[in-house]
Amino acid sequence: MIYELYYWPEIQGRGEFVRLVLEDAGCEYVDVGREPDGDARLEAVLSGALPGALPFALPALRAGDLVVAQTAAITRFLGERHGLAPDTEAGRLGALTIALTIADLVAEVHDTHHPTSVDDYYEDQKAAAKARAAAFRRARLPKFLGYLERNLERNDGVLVGPAVSYADLAAFQVVEGLSYAFPRAMARLHGEIPKLLALRDRVAQRPRLLRYLTSPRRLPFNEQGIFRRYPELDG
Amino acid sequence: MIYELYYWPEIQGRGEFVRLVLEDAGCEYVDVGREPDGDARLEAVLSGALPGALPFALPALRAGDLVVAQTAAITRFLGERHGLAPDTEAGRLGALTIALTIADLVAEVHDTHHPTSVDDYYEDQKAAAKARAAAFRRARLPKFLGYLERNLERNDGVLVGPAVSYADLAAFQVVEGLSYAFPRAMARLHGEIPKLLALRDRVAQRPRLLRYLTSPRRLPFNEQGIFRRYPELDG
Repeated sequence: MIYELYYWPEIQGRGEFVRLVLEDAGCEYVDVGREPDGDARLEAVLSGALPGALPFALPALRAGDLVVAQTAAITRFLGERHGLAPDTEAGRLGALTIALTIADLVAEVHDTHHPTSVDDYYEDQKAAAKARAAAFRRARLPKFLGYLERNLERNDGVLVGPAVSYADLAAFQVVEGLSYAFPRAMARLHGEIPKLLALRDRVAQRPRLLRYLTSPRRLPFNEQGIFRRYPELDG
Repeated sequence: MIYELYYWPEIQGRGEFVRLVLEDAGCEYVDVGREPDGDARLEAVLSGALPGALPFALPALRAGDLVVAQTAAITRFLGERHGLAPDTEAGRLGALTIALTIADLVAEVHDTHHPTSVDDYYEDQKAAAKARAAAFRRARLPKFLGYLERNLERNDGVLVGPAVSYADLAAFQVVEGLSYAFPRAMARLHGEIPKLLALRDRVAQRPRLLRYLTSPRRLPFNEQGIFRRYPELDG
């Protein structure tokens, strides 16, 4: 099985949550957006070229005849197939719950720089972004990271189940992204999230992920993605 | 199996997506928030009283030893157990993809009246809300509803699979909510979403749902919920 990942080639974005699972599981996959005809194929998928339910947005994943979109749904699908999810139904429900909560956090990060209109430039909504980012740093960021920390306290070392799952890979990615975008706000929170930072470090050392993260396949964060370093939004 | 739904008792909110599945499937359930000790039990659940992964927010559902939070994950769980999901893996992936996309739409509806801070009053962010709602009506609302319409065109009558699924119930609810909150914007779009409106009507006539919707258990929409009728946000 060679998976096809459909995502924008210039950014980590939401696609990176899928790439991490594919890489950690050692899956063979084509990152279609980086192929020579990538742009046209991404547009075709958004226009309905694949079977099944349409993707509203990318990422989307094709696995033979199966197609799935929505980041958390894709990572669940891959995680359950490739040993990156708990075996029990209780654990699987927990992993999906946490992955979806991280997806909500990612959406709120996006809204810090696009609080009014996703279709307009950041520069055209800077005042609103400053207000939204302040509320995010003050209330939402500590609440979401505290939520992950409390799950780690309850479950000893990983977020759910007995071993690293796709939920943990998502937690790694969101901590990396937040550390890039909000270095000052994150530094102030470090003392409150020791287990989450330890999980981040542990995930980063997984052999396949370490190879990926130090390879040219891992794009750098940038100001076209979701996690953007705008110092004026970091308080 | 008697399910326990944990959700705020004063609003439809995200909990309503779960109630619709429980009601349409004829499940026995306790709407815990409406019990005499409901408030304390909701707070206990948010503090970690149930086993498994913590819920970041409500709704949460308990099914014996199983606990799941996040609206789309709950409705998937119930839908797949009770005949409100496709039988095939392709169909199940499609239903989850669509239900998660509807959840994203619901989050954007919420942000029309809370564009800056979820923890502050609407009255304290009215100017930002007006700008966000304008962008929502202009670009996001037609895009999301057009997405649902195109899925109905591809799949003939229901969003995914051969019969009504939890994704269709979610589509019903979001059309109902949007029609309450944005009656003028929705009226302008009616000509472009005939299949979605037909689905809404069809779902509303399902016998168990019809009984529920006309019962006192169905709370009215109000301005404490997600779908709020603020005429100044409806253009």
